[in-house]
Amino acid sequence: MRENHLEDYFSFLRFPSVSTDNQFASNVRECAEWVSQKLAAIGLESKVVSTAGHPIVWARNEHRPGRRTVLIYGHYDVQPPDPLELWDSPPFEPVLKEGYVFARGATDNKGQILSHIIGIQETMEQDHDLPVNLHLVIEGEEEIGSANLGPFLSQNRDALRSDVAVVSDTGMIARGVPTLSYGLRGVTALEVKVTGPKMDLHSGVFGGAVANPITALAQLLATLHDREGRVAIAGFYDRVKPLENWEREAWRKLPVDGDKLVLKETGVPELFGEAGYNSLERIWARPTAEINGIGGGYQGKGTKTVIASHAIAKLTFRLVPEQEGNEILELAKTHLRKNLPKGVTLEMTNGHSGPWYLTDPHSAIGEAAQRALRKAFNANVALIREGGSIPIVSQFRSILGIETLLMGLALADCRAHSPNENFPLENLEGGIRLNKAILHELAR
Amino acid sequence: MRENHLEDYFSFLRFPSVSTDNQFASNVRECAEWVSQKLAAIGLESKVVSTAGHPIVWARNEHRPGRRTVLIYGHYDVQPPDPLELWDSPPFEPVLKEGYVFARGATDNKGQILSHIIGIQETMEQDHDLPVNLHLVIEGEEEIGSANLGPFLSQNRDALRSDVAVVSDTGMIARGVPTLSYGLRGVTALEVKVTGPKMDLHSGVFGGAVANPITALAQLLATLHDREGRVAIAGFYDRVKPLENWEREAWRKLPVDGDKLVLKETGVPELFGEAGYNSLERIWARPTAEINGIGGGYQGKGTKTVIASHAIAKLTFRLVPEQEGNEILELAKTHLRKNLPKGVTLEMTNGHSGPWYLTDPHSAIGEAAQRALRKAFNANVALIREGGSIPIVSQFRSILGIETLLMGLALADCRAHSPNENFPLENLEGGIRLNKAILHELAR
Repeated sequence: MRENHLEDYFSFLRFPSVSTDNQFASNVRECAEWVSQKLAAIGLESKVVSTAGHPIVWARNEHRPGRRTVLIYGHYDVQPPDPLELWDSPPFEPVLKEGYVFARGATDNKGQILSHIIGIQETMEQDHDLPVNLHLVIEGEEEIGSANLGPFLSQNRDALRSDVAVVSDTGMIARGVPTLSYGLRGVTALEVKVTGPKMDLHSGVFGGAVANPITALAQLLATLHDREGRVAIAGFYDRVKPLENWEREAWRKLPVDGDKLVLKETGVPELFGEAGYNSLERIWARPTAEINGIGGGYQGKGTKTVIASHAIAKLTFRLVPEQEGNEILELAKTHLRKNLPKGVTLEMTNGHSGPWYLTDPHSAIGEAAQRALRKAFNANVALIREGGSIPIVSQFRSILGIETLLMGLALADCRAHSPNENFPLENLEGGIRLNKAILHELAR
Repeated sequence: MRENHLEDYFSFLRFPSVSTDNQFASNVRECAEWVSQKLAAIGLESKVVSTAGHPIVWARNEHRPGRRTVLIYGHYDVQPPDPLELWDSPPFEPVLKEGYVFARGATDNKGQILSHIIGIQETMEQDHDLPVNLHLVIEGEEEIGSANLGPFLSQNRDALRSDVAVVSDTGMIARGVPTLSYGLRGVTALEVKVTGPKMDLHSGVFGGAVANPITALAQLLATLHDREGRVAIAGFYDRVKPLENWEREAWRKLPVDGDKLVLKETGVPELFGEAGYNSLERIWARPTAEINGIGGGYQGKGTKTVIASHAIAKLTFRLVPEQEGNEILELAKTHLRKNLPKGVTLEMTNGHSGPWYLTDPHSAIGEAAQRALRKAFNANVALIREGGSIPIVSQFRSILGIETLLMGLALADCRAHSPNENFPLENLEGGIRLNKAILHELAR
């Protein structure tokens, strides 16, 4: 890798572009301007687009008819570096140690974005052109929910017309293993409130003669699953697309042991989940009903002999193809109403929703991605799904009508969002090769 | 009632003897000194005993051999008056309106204490003597847990040797119905913590592959009861003394409808409790397992897609004769360990305990109390138990070895602990008659 690429990388990393904290607002904007100037310097037409929040950098080459149009997405904002005392070197003073660059954003997402930019740069230097029409959209609010990206895509829908999106913001399944993520779970949220007495009661004066809302809530929530880890809501699995045989086989051949990985990363005393599936299958391909929070009555030190007036729980359901968020909420609400214990009332409030994502890794663009990955890393490609949700991927589909190739470069030990975030130079170099390859493969 | 009795009552009520708030410490002491001087003025030997907290007033007459010794207990401290804006008149400026005295402490416990004092005073004026040996112990920390009463009783065990304790700090079942409370429930506490992952996890990244500690806690707590409201812990009811037939019959003849009372006071949508018992029986004679608090994960606004590392619940068990607190805790812990869902660990911490109380209302002193109550109020006596716990009653039994006659004068609408606390003068007058009568009846 050229020396000046590393200089660019370090310059990019020195901006404390922390999007969540207003005191860094000017650093965020300076970072956007640096990115835009860099893109202009390699020969793209680039601008910094103001939004209601942090700006979006939007660059393109000269589009010519008859070529595929590729939208590359990334983000230049970073997570806060706290807790600072856990860093071995200052988070915004990048250092190279034994092949790893340490800094906030090294992996997420500046290293990966820079591999796109350098890939484009080297392609243009070698070919004096790009083989595709290109849009680069690099936002500054990914770490705080991308609130202004959807409006930007909607307002510029025609100008942004593309054939496919490429994103490097996910993970590699293992070091040296090129990875295409072709599926994500969706999510939908429900808040539950169980109410008994009109105010908190003395548990001596009334205990035994009225239903306890916390007890009732626990009994209600206990009906959500059976003892084998299956969700017990009628109809919950009706639309779930079973795992394809090729997926099951491919995942079992991956060079990682999902069960061991989960045990190591979470520290749970033992694995537990839906019967009949292993850990990777449970996370990547099966829906869940999770209680994200519960609260009621007295939670302080010692004892308060109170019967609470009410208790709440916050639920989310992870969705998989072909589940539909609103339908799952209705099924869940019907189930909870039906299983409500005596003596209490129930209120339920729908929360935010985001759809699942699944694209065919064996489609024409999927095969192009696989070829590029194989070429860049000289190894077999891992085809995986992920358990989380990436809302922008759904927005690319719903607003721009395009599929997304998720070709991430992060490793499990890159410590994204944590102290001592780092990125191996070999992944930056692999990412540059990948970006050169993907442009050519998508052009075919 | 004499005019100067009302003046005494108002003087007593004007002290803001709020024990929980240190800014009132000097008011609390002044109140104790006022009480002691009042007791000296009516002819008793009285002193203010300093403790590690607020002082105790201890008065006695000249004891003579061959007479019963009676210990009258009360407290001169009061609850804070907040919220002040809900009072119709200032809480420490007593007013008499349509036969009711309004002030903080009017009922709890200054009015009831004063009825003792005036009853003694009038007896001494009429008879130039008391028919019994008397101890009056009036403490200043009842509203904050009576922490220094036990040590006081222990240190003065020999000097305080008595035959029976008399306390007016409970309720009358209905207006004009003299009431003897002969039983109280005990209580024992247990804190439960369920832990899964070593830190909060992203519910997308790991959801489905690890047990959710909140879900596990809900499932665990749901095993505490069956659907009929019975506690499902093996052995929980083994030592429970069944309701006696006479109690069941007496309670069903009381001039109150317990079911209606609970519905009205609590505002619950419907009654719920252990099958086979009505509301008064459930509260007075049946043990419970209550969840007083629960907490885990995200309880703020909106959604946080987290799998909590742990979740906690705070339990108390109300105990009835002949249950034993430590045994119930062991049974509960065995039950919880046995029913723990997979994939999580369980920690349990014992909390405070207090025993139940039951005395025989048909014993010699019980019959004396009933005769005095009947004479004072000219009505049939209600024999009831109460659902709460009064720790001092257990201390009188365990430290002094005596039974307690609970002959309360509070009505349900006296608003003890609430704004606009009040006490009907007819109850003060009835209380004076009761105190004169009980001294004579206990002397027989």
